[in-house]
Amino acid sequence: MPHEARLPFNPLIRDLPSTAPFIGPEALERQQGRPFTLRLGANESLLGPSPRAIEAVRAAVPQVALYGDPENMELRQAISDQEGVDVERIVVSAGIDDLLGLLIRVLLNPGDIAVTTLGAYPTVSFHLHGFGARIEQIPYAGLYNDLEAIGAAARRVEARLAYLANPDNPTGTFVDGEAVTRLLHNLPENCAFLLDEAYTEFAPSSCRQVAPADDPRLIRLRTFSKAYGLAGARVGYAIAPVAVARMIEKVRLHFGVNRLAQIAALAAYRDHAYLDTVVAEVAQGRQEYAALGRELGLPPAPSATNFVAFDAGSTERAQALAADLGERNVFIRRPTIGPTYLIRVTVADSAGRLAFATRFRAACEATAHLAVRAS
Amino acid sequence: MPHEARLPFNPLIRDLPSTAPFIGPEALERQQGRPFTLRLGANESLLGPSPRAIEAVRAAVPQVALYGDPENMELRQAISDQEGVDVERIVVSAGIDDLLGLLIRVLLNPGDIAVTTLGAYPTVSFHLHGFGARIEQIPYAGLYNDLEAIGAAARRVEARLAYLANPDNPTGTFVDGEAVTRLLHNLPENCAFLLDEAYTEFAPSSCRQVAPADDPRLIRLRTFSKAYGLAGARVGYAIAPVAVARMIEKVRLHFGVNRLAQIAALAAYRDHAYLDTVVAEVAQGRQEYAALGRELGLPPAPSATNFVAFDAGSTERAQALAADLGERNVFIRRPTIGPTYLIRVTVADSAGRLAFATRFRAACEATAHLAVRAS
Repeated sequence: MPHEARLPFNPLIRDLPSTAPFIGPEALERQQGRPFTLRLGANESLLGPSPRAIEAVRAAVPQVALYGDPENMELRQAISDQEGVDVERIVVSAGIDDLLGLLIRVLLNPGDIAVTTLGAYPTVSFHLHGFGARIEQIPYAGLYNDLEAIGAAARRVEARLAYLANPDNPTGTFVDGEAVTRLLHNLPENCAFLLDEAYTEFAPSSCRQVAPADDPRLIRLRTFSKAYGLAGARVGYAIAPVAVARMIEKVRLHFGVNRLAQIAALAAYRDHAYLDTVVAEVAQGRQEYAALGRELGLPPAPSATNFVAFDAGSTERAQALAADLGERNVFIRRPTIGPTYLIRVTVADSAGRLAFATRFRAACEATAHLAVRAS
Repeated sequence: MPHEARLPFNPLIRDLPSTAPFIGPEALERQQGRPFTLRLGANESLLGPSPRAIEAVRAAVPQVALYGDPENMELRQAISDQEGVDVERIVVSAGIDDLLGLLIRVLLNPGDIAVTTLGAYPTVSFHLHGFGARIEQIPYAGLYNDLEAIGAAARRVEARLAYLANPDNPTGTFVDGEAVTRLLHNLPENCAFLLDEAYTEFAPSSCRQVAPADDPRLIRLRTFSKAYGLAGARVGYAIAPVAVARMIEKVRLHFGVNRLAQIAALAAYRDHAYLDTVVAEVAQGRQEYAALGRELGLPPAPSATNFVAFDAGSTERAQALAADLGERNVFIRRPTIGPTYLIRVTVADSAGRLAFATRFRAACEATAHLAVRAS
């Protein structure tokens, strides 16, 4: 009889399609039977983490035998001090992906509607689907999130959650804090506002001037994966209303953050000088990428992140460019919904940028027959 | 208006009590204003991880800038090879705690009933409550899980999930594979069987002879936190039916495992000689603890784990012993439901065992007035 057994499974999950938000570069390498030599698709920091973080982790490796502090207190206290926000409002967890899942779980019921941008960070839709929410996706207005339309849609559909990445991924563009504030005020009063600031360290501080900062709907998401160079560590944090933080506390994985990651994040967070170096170097790299894109007839989107989205003119050419770069062992990504005419390339270190320029020139030439003629 | 806003929250989570499965030792240290000098409450390996794992992590620290392989393929392949189980059936995630949450989420609906043992691993109940399941808790039969009663209850209440830890936590006792097999066969045919084998490396191999190994209800949970000495890394795995693994794939955090943890786990998993050393040293330590318990009139439960549960004779004395040891800067745990007359102490390295013995003697003496007179 047991071999005939059928577990019933949760029907919501049983009926989901089998998709992952991203296929990792390692899986692509296994498929194609050779490694990438330029890994520019996941917006990891190719400048690496602070040397102080590296040193702190190296010294602490044997401590990996011990569970991390489930309250993540030292890191939360440091963030609280620097941000001037009560420590009770800081939620540390295993990256923004983890926080998105927790937030969607505590904020929504199956059937509730969330508003986001068509083509925005796929993990948001992954978690929304995973918890049975419905999704209203607003097209980009060119290279920008359409904040007016997001607010209007949220009111129209009585959304319980709105998601905005600022700076945006995958376009790299940003809007200033006043625009974000206007959106916040346009949202229904029981609609949570998830403001994904994964790339905020690369952006002007005006981005972050959202008022009121203690609006009970406003939940900001930050990460150590980008500017801090700790993508593999899995640490991110939310600045949330206390009520939201308490709700997450009831369901989060209390021992979910790696002990070495806690140590790395704290050391990286305290090394302001290194962060400044990274931000400056990435800004330089963005300028080089932008000049390259203009030279090759692929206009760069204005970026306040550690990547540049190039306008390939058409979905067809964007696909061809991504495939051709893959053949040249360059891992990049492109949105598969929304602004599908873009390819998105992480800013490398200077050697990586040189190598990318050579291969990008060749890929552009190889796909030139697909270039859209300027009218 | 915004300051009047009230987020509705998911009512299931809103109505949960504010409890965490465990308060971490760091939080207790902050409360009492001084550090523990013997950390024997979380069953971490005080022998540490394999030196090869430490070396592999040290060499790889700068790689923490890169996301880990979301498919955890190298580690899954190694487990697949050693266990002789198809790689599709191996699910790697951030520890058994994470896997328990994922499994309960995909297997159950709110209102479904799960059967477990009263006083067993609290994180199971935490996740069951968190996903709205109802819990039927079967009392221990002395120091053992009551497998007959678990099976009977599962049939009576039409349970959709049964949980058993073998070896058990917090008692440390184990049953052989034949007994587990009988329970499996007694469960309803649509009832998932979560077999938590966190401590299995310390136990006789007869524990693991559960038949049929490919029963579609059987999900085994393993961890790198105990014998492998990597509690702070957050890596565990499930050996699950393919259908279950595919369901988890739809909702799991795809980039959830730390890259250095993947490297550490793989190196530790391959170092069989070191594992043997750990298991032998822990067996020696258990004998010393057992002798100590008998000497002090606190009978040790037979243990096949890296901890020993001592029978304090009464809840009152168990509480007093735990508090007294805390005053002596020894961190231990005791169950707060079920067999509350126990205190649970991790087997330390030889220096730690000597230090514990001294303080345990003193604590027993200080609480001797609470000893239950032998009848």
